[in-house]
Amino acid sequence: MSDLPRPPVRGLPVPDRPAMAGFEPDLTVDPNLVNLDDYERAAAERIPAGPLAYFTGGALDERTLRDNRAAFDRRRMIPRVMTDVAEVDTGVELLGRRWPTPIWIAPTALQRMAHPDGELATARAAAARGITVTLSSSASTDMGDIAEAGGPRWYQVYLLADPGARRAMVERAVSLGYEALVMTVDLQRLGRRERDIRVGFRIPEGVGLPNIARAAGVGDEQAADVAFVSRLTWDDLEWVAGFGLPVVVKGILHPDDARLAVAHGAAAIDVSNHGGRQLDGAIASLDALPAVLEAVAGRVPVLMDGGVRRGTDALIALALGATAVGIGRPVIWGLAVDGEAGVGRVLDIITGELEQAMALAGVSSVTELNTIRVV
Amino acid sequence: MSDLPRPPVRGLPVPDRPAMAGFEPDLTVDPNLVNLDDYERAAAERIPAGPLAYFTGGALDERTLRDNRAAFDRRRMIPRVMTDVAEVDTGVELLGRRWPTPIWIAPTALQRMAHPDGELATARAAAARGITVTLSSSASTDMGDIAEAGGPRWYQVYLLADPGARRAMVERAVSLGYEALVMTVDLQRLGRRERDIRVGFRIPEGVGLPNIARAAGVGDEQAADVAFVSRLTWDDLEWVAGFGLPVVVKGILHPDDARLAVAHGAAAIDVSNHGGRQLDGAIASLDALPAVLEAVAGRVPVLMDGGVRRGTDALIALALGATAVGIGRPVIWGLAVDGEAGVGRVLDIITGELEQAMALAGVSSVTELNTIRVV
Amino acid sequence: MSDLPRPPVRGLPVPDRPAMAGFEPDLTVDPNLVNLDDYERAAAERIPAGPLAYFTGGALDERTLRDNRAAFDRRRMIPRVMTDVAEVDTGVELLGRRWPTPIWIAPTALQRMAHPDGELATARAAAARGITVTLSSSASTDMGDIAEAGGPRWYQVYLLADPGARRAMVERAVSLGYEALVMTVDLQRLGRRERDIRVGFRIPEGVGLPNIARAAGVGDEQAADVAFVSRLTWDDLEWVAGFGLPVVVKGILHPDDARLAVAHGAAAIDVSNHGGRQLDGAIASLDALPAVLEAVAGRVPVLMDGGVRRGTDALIALALGATAVGIGRPVIWGLAVDGEAGVGRVLDIITGELEQAMALAGVSSVTELNTIRVV
Amino acid sequence: MSDLPRPPVRGLPVPDRPAMAGFEPDLTVDPNLVNLDDYERAAAERIPAGPLAYFTGGALDERTLRDNRAAFDRRRMIPRVMTDVAEVDTGVELLGRRWPTPIWIAPTALQRMAHPDGELATARAAAARGITVTLSSSASTDMGDIAEAGGPRWYQVYLLADPGARRAMVERAVSLGYEALVMTVDLQRLGRRERDIRVGFRIPEGVGLPNIARAAGVGDEQAADVAFVSRLTWDDLEWVAGFGLPVVVKGILHPDDARLAVAHGAAAIDVSNHGGRQLDGAIASLDALPAVLEAVAGRVPVLMDGGVRRGTDALIALALGATAVGIGRPVIWGLAVDGEAGVGRVLDIITGELEQAMALAGVSSVTELNTIRVV
Repeated sequence: MSDLPRPPVRGLPVPDRPAMAGFEPDLTVDPNLVNLDDYERAAAERIPAGPLAYFTGGALDERTLRDNRAAFDRRRMIPRVMTDVAEVDTGVELLGRRWPTPIWIAPTALQRMAHPDGELATARAAAARGITVTLSSSASTDMGDIAEAGGPRWYQVYLLADPGARRAMVERAVSLGYEALVMTVDLQRLGRRERDIRVGFRIPEGVGLPNIARAAGVGDEQAADVAFVSRLTWDDLEWVAGFGLPVVVKGILHPDDARLAVAHGAAAIDVSNHGGRQLDGAIASLDALPAVLEAVAGRVPVLMDGGVRRGTDALIALALGATAVGIGRPVIWGLAVDGEAGVGRVLDIITGELEQAMALAGVSSVTELNTIRVV
Repeated sequence: MSDLPRPPVRGLPVPDRPAMAGFEPDLTVDPNLVNLDDYERAAAERIPAGPLAYFTGGALDERTLRDNRAAFDRRRMIPRVMTDVAEVDTGVELLGRRWPTPIWIAPTALQRMAHPDGELATARAAAARGITVTLSSSASTDMGDIAEAGGPRWYQVYLLADPGARRAMVERAVSLGYEALVMTVDLQRLGRRERDIRVGFRIPEGVGLPNIARAAGVGDEQAADVAFVSRLTWDDLEWVAGFGLPVVVKGILHPDDARLAVAHGAAAIDVSNHGGRQLDGAIASLDALPAVLEAVAGRVPVLMDGGVRRGTDALIALALGATAVGIGRPVIWGLAVDGEAGVGRVLDIITGELEQAMALAGVSSVTELNTIRVV
Repeated sequence: MSDLPRPPVRGLPVPDRPAMAGFEPDLTVDPNLVNLDDYERAAAERIPAGPLAYFTGGALDERTLRDNRAAFDRRRMIPRVMTDVAEVDTGVELLGRRWPTPIWIAPTALQRMAHPDGELATARAAAARGITVTLSSSASTDMGDIAEAGGPRWYQVYLLADPGARRAMVERAVSLGYEALVMTVDLQRLGRRERDIRVGFRIPEGVGLPNIARAAGVGDEQAADVAFVSRLTWDDLEWVAGFGLPVVVKGILHPDDARLAVAHGAAAIDVSNHGGRQLDGAIASLDALPAVLEAVAGRVPVLMDGGVRRGTDALIALALGATAVGIGRPVIWGLAVDGEAGVGRVLDIITGELEQAMALAGVSSVTELNTIRVV
Repeated sequence: MSDLPRPPVRGLPVPDRPAMAGFEPDLTVDPNLVNLDDYERAAAERIPAGPLAYFTGGALDERTLRDNRAAFDRRRMIPRVMTDVAEVDTGVELLGRRWPTPIWIAPTALQRMAHPDGELATARAAAARGITVTLSSSASTDMGDIAEAGGPRWYQVYLLADPGARRAMVERAVSLGYEALVMTVDLQRLGRRERDIRVGFRIPEGVGLPNIARAAGVGDEQAADVAFVSRLTWDDLEWVAGFGLPVVVKGILHPDDARLAVAHGAAAIDVSNHGGRQLDGAIASLDALPAVLEAVAGRVPVLMDGGVRRGTDALIALALGATAVGIGRPVIWGLAVDGEAGVGRVLDIITGELEQAMALAGVSSVTELNTIRVV
C-alpha cells in the first residue's frame, strides 16, 4: 500500500473519489462561469460590437479559426493509470526560467478595448501566478507599467519602419526586464477579417498605442500612422537576436521555416497561425506541430498557440511534444468579465484543468508525457 | 432440408419471417419504452435535476462521453448467413461462472437517487436473470442486502485511507459471497463534471454510503468525509488480489497498462474510461479495445464498458474480441422508470437485442464470433 | 466530324446542349414528382401510418438503412468524355435474358397496403418496360395474376415449415413461368423495426397472403399463422436449386458466404442487407460489394440492392462491378402515388437517369464501364 | 534589415500590421458586399426565380455542386514566412499572353438573364483589368460586341449540327480576335437540373442566342431550335484545332482523357465538371486535379474551374499545380447586383484575396508556389 498520511477530505459533494487536491477552487465558482467558453459568452455581452468583432474574428471564412479548435477535438489521448499522481508537478523549464505551468499568455493587441485596466490587469493576474505574459507591440498600455507588475514577461516585436524608432522600442523592452523577444513572422500583411469590415471597426477614442508612439516620438493620435517595415526576412531575426535576449519566433507552420528559424538564431519556435486571423485555409496549429517538432529535432523548445481552451487541449499539445502552449483570446474574455480577477480566474481554470488532466492521464510531471499516447 | 419439428408461430403481425424465438416479449411493450434510449428519455422526466446531472454527465466538454457511443456508430459488421441459428446460445464462461449473456452491470454510485429501492432493485432484477451485478463502494445500499438478492455479484473497491477500514470493507465483501473484486483504477482524482457544478449537485438527504460508513465505523452523516487513499499503484492491485477473489481491473485504456495489470495479478481487464466522466478527450472504450486485446494476448479475459446501448453494440465489441460488455447508465434509467421491473426490462431489451443480433449475424454462440468481421 | 444526320431538336428550354435523346419525358412531369425522393414524400401523405412505418423503417437505430444511401454519397465517379454516346445501350444479359436496363424490382411484401392494385400494378408497369419484377412470398397478390401481366418475373422464396406446402409454393412458381427463384438468406429472424412497434403496425383487414395460403391449403385468415422453416442452411439452397430454375441468393454481405453460395449452386448473388431491416449495424450494401465481387471472381453475376435512388447510384454500383441493381421501396412510393402509372413513372425516372448518367460518364454500354473510375 | 524606403501607411484602422499594399479597396466597400458569397445572396434577391434556378442549380442531388466547394474546405495550406513579399506579382504566362492574375472568367450562358447589359458588362469589367473572358456559344450577346470591349477573350465552342453553320461560328470568332477556343467536352447531353424543372424555367422573352442564330442564318426566335452535333469525339477536337487558335479542352476529369486531349492537340486542359451541372456524383474538380496534372506531366498548362469562391481557393489550386482557375457563377452574381461595376468588384475582390493570400503564404510570384504545401 502506498498511501502516506494525508489530511482528511472535507465535505465531498460526491463521494466516489479519493481527493480534491489541486482542483478545489472550481467548486466555488459562479455556475455560469465554469470554463473558458463560459467566459467567451459572458464577454460577448460586455464588449462593444466593434472591439468584439476584432477580438473574435478570423480571416475570410474563418476556416482556420474553427479548425484550430476542431484539431483538438479530432485527437484522443490514451492515458495511463496506477501511477503515483498524488503530487502533480506541472512545472517546466523554458529559456532559463522555471514555469509553474506550461501555459503562457500569447500577445493580443489593444486590451483596453476589453476593459479599462487592459494589459495591466492581465499582467498583474499573470504575475500573481508566475505565469509569463507577452506584451504586444500594439498594446494599449505602456511597457513600463507592465514591468512594474513584476511578473515574468516577454515583449512581442513588430519592426517599425524608422530605424531609430525600431531600435528604441526594442531597447526599451530589454532595459525593462522583458526576458524574451517574441518576433511575429506571419504578419507582413494584415489578414482580411470580415467581421471588422461588417461592423466598421475602428479603434475607440482613448485607446492608444503608447509603445509605438513613444518609440517613434509622436503623440498618441499619430501612433496609428507609424509605419512598420514592409519587408521581413530572416536577416531581421538576426537583428532582433542581436539585442541579447532569447527570441521566440511566433508564426511558424512549415517545417522548412522551423529549420530556418533555428539556423538564424531562434531560441524557441511558436507554432501558430495568428489565431486564424491571417491566411485562412492555413493548417491548424496543432496539426502543424508534429512536422515542426520533427524538423526542429529538439534543438530548441517548440511552443504552440491556437485553439487551446481546455487543460485537456494543453495536455494533447504537450503530449505531442510542445514545451508550452499559449492562450490569447480567453485572456481577453476574462479581462472583459472582471478585469484582473477575471484574467486570474481564466488562468486558474485552465491551469487547474491541466493539472487535473495530467493526474487523470497518470502523468505526474512533464517528463512523463512520453508514457501516454495521442491518436 | 434442415427444419426440425418446431411449434407453429402464432399471430404474426408481419408475415415475412419464420419465427419469433427469443424476441417475442418486445411486441408487448409500451411503444414509448422500446429501447434503452427511450428509458433514458423517460428517466430524465423522473429524476431530479441534481442527480440527473450526476448520472448523465461526463467530464468537461463530454467529448469522450459522446465518442463512446459514436465509436459504435463508426463500425460496421459483415454478418454471415445460412448458418443454423434456430438456437442461439449467448452464454459465456467467465471467471469460473457460466453467464447466460455476455452482459454485466457495471458499477454506478448512489442508485437510491434514481429510485427508493436503489441498488437492491437492480440486484434483484439481475439475479432473476442470472446476470452479474457490480456493487459500487459508493453504493447507497448495504452490501449485505445485495447479497441477499442471491444473484451473481461483484464488488467494486475504492481503497479507504484508513488501513483498518480499507481491509474491513473488502473482507466483508469476500465474506458475503461476492465473486470478484472490481478495482477501479482511473479515479485517483474526480473528473470535472460541469453539469454537476452548474446545477449545484449535492447528495440528497437520506441517501447514504452505508458500506463506507460501516467499514470506517462512522455514522451515515460522516461517510462522505471518509478519505480514500491518495495514491494508487500496482502494489495496491496485489494487495486487493491477496484476498483470494479474482480481481477485475476496471479503467484500462493503454496497452502497456493492460500488460502491467496482468503482471500484477489481474484476473480480467475492463477497458473503460469511466463513462467519459474522468479524462475528457480520452479514447473511446471501443476504440481502445483492439490494442488492449493484442497486448493481453488471451492471458486473461478482456471486458469493456462505455457507450453500449444496443445488443448490436455488444455484438460489435464481442466480435472485436471482448469477452463481455458492461452497461451502467441504462440500468439507472430502468431503475428510475420502474424500479426492479424497469431494470429487468432494460436487461431484457439489450440481452434480447444481442441474442437477435447474433442470430441475424449468423452466429449461434460466442465461439463463432470469429466468423464475422467488424470494419 | 462524327455527326450523323439526326432529327433537329425542338423547343429547347435551355440551349447549351446538343440533344434531348433519352431523357425528354422528364420535362413534362409534375414539378413536385421529379425524382424518387419526391415520390417518397408524396407517398408518405397517402399511406396510412402503420403500413408507412412498415415500408419505411429499418431495424433498431436505422444505422444501416441510412448508411445504404450514405455509401453512395461517399463515392465519386471519374467520368470519360469525347466518346460516342449518341446511342446509349443500357441493356445487359442476365441469366439468359436480355434486360433493357440493369435495374430490377426487388421483392417487397404486402404491396396492397400501398395501393389496392398492389403487386399487379407493379408487375404491369414492369412488364410494359421489359423490367424484371420479383414477387415476394409475402405478396398480397396471387402469383398467377402476376404471371398474367406477362413480363419477366422472378419469385422470391421463403421456405414453409410444412414440406408439402413448401414444395407446392415453389412448384407453382416454376409452372407459372417465373424465370428465377430468389432465395432470401438473411431472414431467419425478423429484424426489430421499432417504427412498427411504436405505431402498433398490424396487417390491415383485407390484405392477405394468397400464395402462402394456397400452398399451405388454408384460408386467408390463417395465412399469417403458417410457419416458415426455423433453420436455413446451404443444403436448403441446393433443394431450391433442384427445381431447375436459376437461383439468385439474396442477402449476401460476407465474401465467404459469396463463395459458399456459388459452391452450393447459386446462379447469381444479390448483395443486400434487406434494406437495413435485419441486422442494424451491418455494412452498407454498396460497401460490401467490392469484396463480394473479388470473392466471386466472375463465376456468377453479382447484383446488389439497398439505397439505390438515382440513376447515378446505379451507375456507381455498376462501375464497381455489379451486373444489376435492385430497387424496392421506390416502387412502393410510385404505387402509392398513382398505382401502375406511378410505378411506371418511378421506373422511367431511374432508368432515364441511368441512361443519361452513362452518357454523361462517356459510357455507351455496360461493356465500357471499366473505362470509368469510382473513388 | 531589408526594409527599403516605402511610403508611410495612412490611417490604419487596426495597427498590428505593416502595410495595406494591394488590398486597400476592400476597406471602402459596402459591408454587405464584402465577399463573393455576399454577392450570391444579393443576386438571389435580384434575379427572377427561373433564371436564378438556372444559374444556381446543379444536376440531380447537387452532390458534385456542393463537393466542388467542400473540396477546398477539406484542404489546408502550410504557408511560408519571412520571405520578401513586399511586392507580390500574381502574373502568369498562359498561351502566349501575360495574365495579371491567374484567374479567368469561365463561360456561362445567357448572361442577359442576370442583367440587361449581360456579357458586354462582363467583358468590359474584365477588359478593364486585363482578365481573360470566355464567351459562351450560348451567350445572349453578339461576339462582335464583346470583341469591341477590347480585352483578352476566348470563345467557347459548341459544335452546330449543320456543317456550314458550325464552321461559320468558329471562323467568326477567329476573325474577331478571340485568342483561344474553349471546347467544352462534357455536354453531349444536358445534365438534369431539377431546380429548372421545379420552377418551369424557360428562357425569358428578349434574351436570344445571337451567335447561334447568325451562324445558322436563322432569326432569333429559331435559334433555340438549332441542333448541336449529337456525337463528339477526339476527331472533333482536331477539327477545332485546325482553325489555328490554341484550344482549351474544358471538362476533363479523368487522367486518361487528359492524355488523349494532349495527343489530339489540346493547347491547355481545363479540369471541370461543368459546375456540377452535368454528371451528379462526378468527382470535385479540385480532387480531380492532381491525377490530371500527373498525367499531363507539364506538356500543356492545366486550368481548373468549379467551386472557386475565394482567393485562398485559387491559391490552393495553384499550389497543387494548376496554372489558372476559372470562375463562373460569381460573375453572374456581380452582374446581377451592379452590372459592369458589380462584375468588376467581384473580380477585384477575388484577385485581391489571391494577391493577399500569396503574400500571407510567403509567395511573391507563381514561380514560388512549390515552396508551400497543400495537405
